[in-house]
Amino acid sequence: MHPTVFLPMAAGYAPLVGHHRHLLDDEVRTRAFLDAIARVVKSGDTVADLGTGTGVLAIAARRAGARHVWAIDRDPIVQVAAAIARDNGIDGITFIEQHSRTVELPEPVDVIVSECFGPMAIGGSMIPAVIDLRDRFGKPGVRVVPGTVTLVVAPVEVPEMYEHVAAFTKPRFGLAWNAAHRLAINNVYNTVVSPEALIAPAHAMHTVDLLRDQWTGRIEGRATWRATRAGLVHGLGGWFEADLGGSVTLSTAPSAPATIWRQVVFPLPEPMRVERDTEITATLACIHGENFDWAGTIGARTFRCSTRYSHPAALTP
Amino acid sequence: MHPTVFLPMAAGYAPLVGHHRHLLDDEVRTRAFLDAIARVVKSGDTVADLGTGTGVLAIAARRAGARHVWAIDRDPIVQVAAAIARDNGIDGITFIEQHSRTVELPEPVDVIVSECFGPMAIGGSMIPAVIDLRDRFGKPGVRVVPGTVTLVVAPVEVPEMYEHVAAFTKPRFGLAWNAAHRLAINNVYNTVVSPEALIAPAHAMHTVDLLRDQWTGRIEGRATWRATRAGLVHGLGGWFEADLGGSVTLSTAPSAPATIWRQVVFPLPEPMRVERDTEITATLACIHGENFDWAGTIGARTFRCSTRYSHPAALTP
Repeated sequence: MHPTVFLPMAAGYAPLVGHHRHLLDDEVRTRAFLDAIARVVKSGDTVADLGTGTGVLAIAARRAGARHVWAIDRDPIVQVAAAIARDNGIDGITFIEQHSRTVELPEPVDVIVSECFGPMAIGGSMIPAVIDLRDRFGKPGVRVVPGTVTLVVAPVEVPEMYEHVAAFTKPRFGLAWNAAHRLAINNVYNTVVSPEALIAPAHAMHTVDLLRDQWTGRIEGRATWRATRAGLVHGLGGWFEADLGGSVTLSTAPSAPATIWRQVVFPLPEPMRVERDTEITATLACIHGENFDWAGTIGARTFRCSTRYSHPAALTP
Repeated sequence: MHPTVFLPMAAGYAPLVGHHRHLLDDEVRTRAFLDAIARVVKSGDTVADLGTGTGVLAIAARRAGARHVWAIDRDPIVQVAAAIARDNGIDGITFIEQHSRTVELPEPVDVIVSECFGPMAIGGSMIPAVIDLRDRFGKPGVRVVPGTVTLVVAPVEVPEMYEHVAAFTKPRFGLAWNAAHRLAINNVYNTVVSPEALIAPAHAMHTVDLLRDQWTGRIEGRATWRATRAGLVHGLGGWFEADLGGSVTLSTAPSAPATIWRQVVFPLPEPMRVERDTEITATLACIHGENFDWAGTIGARTFRCSTRYSHPAALTP
């Protein structure tokens, strides 16, 4: 589903023809948000759309009866959204090219709409931006699309993916690459996990409530599983389930229809064999939407990994 | 060849496990540079490696007999390179985490090595950085790997790729997307062009001489073709041929072995039919390594496109 065959070059309008078309092409994603907006937005509402992109959700809010929509994006893509609205004869939307943190809206809003999910939902800076806008401009009882997002994790057997992760354990060009391997295992991978890869049923580890939660910069969850079969644990598979509002849910589980988010894998430092009924525990933390820590136990053995790009602790042997 | 199946998340060590492994996995690319370095670098030389990445070219220069190598990269990946050199018992390389523009080397160098090619070779900021370092720290007669790079262009028939470009001409979600389409055609696409797609034999449009040229921020070439068959011109296909030095050449032509660079396509605003012998002319300009202009004639018709990300002229109807 990722537009890998025809990559627009970064020099051009990549945020449009690459990223935004990629988003729009995902019918599961886009239809779910359009359905939720049609149900949540009521006639006469004021609405903010954070990260409006091509404006498709802002236009949907206006079509659902919003009195006015404030469509915010820090990227010049918002100029495209304004042109699309104009070309389609849609009024009542103010397009604002600005970071939401510095936006001042002239009135409080009844609804905040935002497709704010990164891979594993919480990666990136969008969820804290929604919470910030909600606190500054949401009316009492503000509705948020999405309302909640739950992080779901399961131990997984993904040999093909792990072979890619472990490629630097082999010599190449007459050199040993151990230092590179340390970084490869201290990373998060966005890939497709099949339902058959699960070694135990998935557990919800944490729910972010966009209607009520404050943002501390740190999200942490923990879970315990018992292997339902013998196998080789290569890592923790992760995905999310979102309640978008209006009884519309969006699941990125391995068993759900494919979406742009696919699934993620947090690899182990080395694969670990389990028998049926072996206990597996893990904690997963996300810091400032950028860095992840994952650690735990598999039977009597422990594992611990983290991503820190600018402070590559993994470089220290 | 692009690692699309297993995408490391941007939050983690993407520059290593994504980009740099992607580079190393390209044997055509890496072997060509290693071969050229083995032939160009002489015993006792001092060498600068600009954009050293994982350090594989710097290590090759040292193995070829360099007295000392200055390996420069502005990315923390250079710390990985230093660890790899240390793990492999390779001395004589100073790893510098700094932008090359501000680097001060303690002595002039005999050789500059740099895998400085973007798609279509000249995209990005690496080639001007090599020229800057050459002017500031190259000994008289400095050797540069690569020595020259030639931009090659041909009119191409690429219906599948053009269908992707033109996707925004169709309504979706009850909206017309003309404004998005204007940006889609004013972009450059990195894709695979088959040898059969060429409507006329390719022409060299411009050669950058890394040993002698100054950098003006603007590179421009022009060419005239005569169609060798009837067909539908969807755009200009582009690639490069580099003389790396020591009689080693690297071609990214459609007929050459596949590389990470693939080919690029500069689309036309709309496909244009040609008969055998129709004359086609084009100019191609690259400004500051970021923006491209392409324009020309196909028989009596003209075309003109450009990429300008921060100043989206294409947005003005």
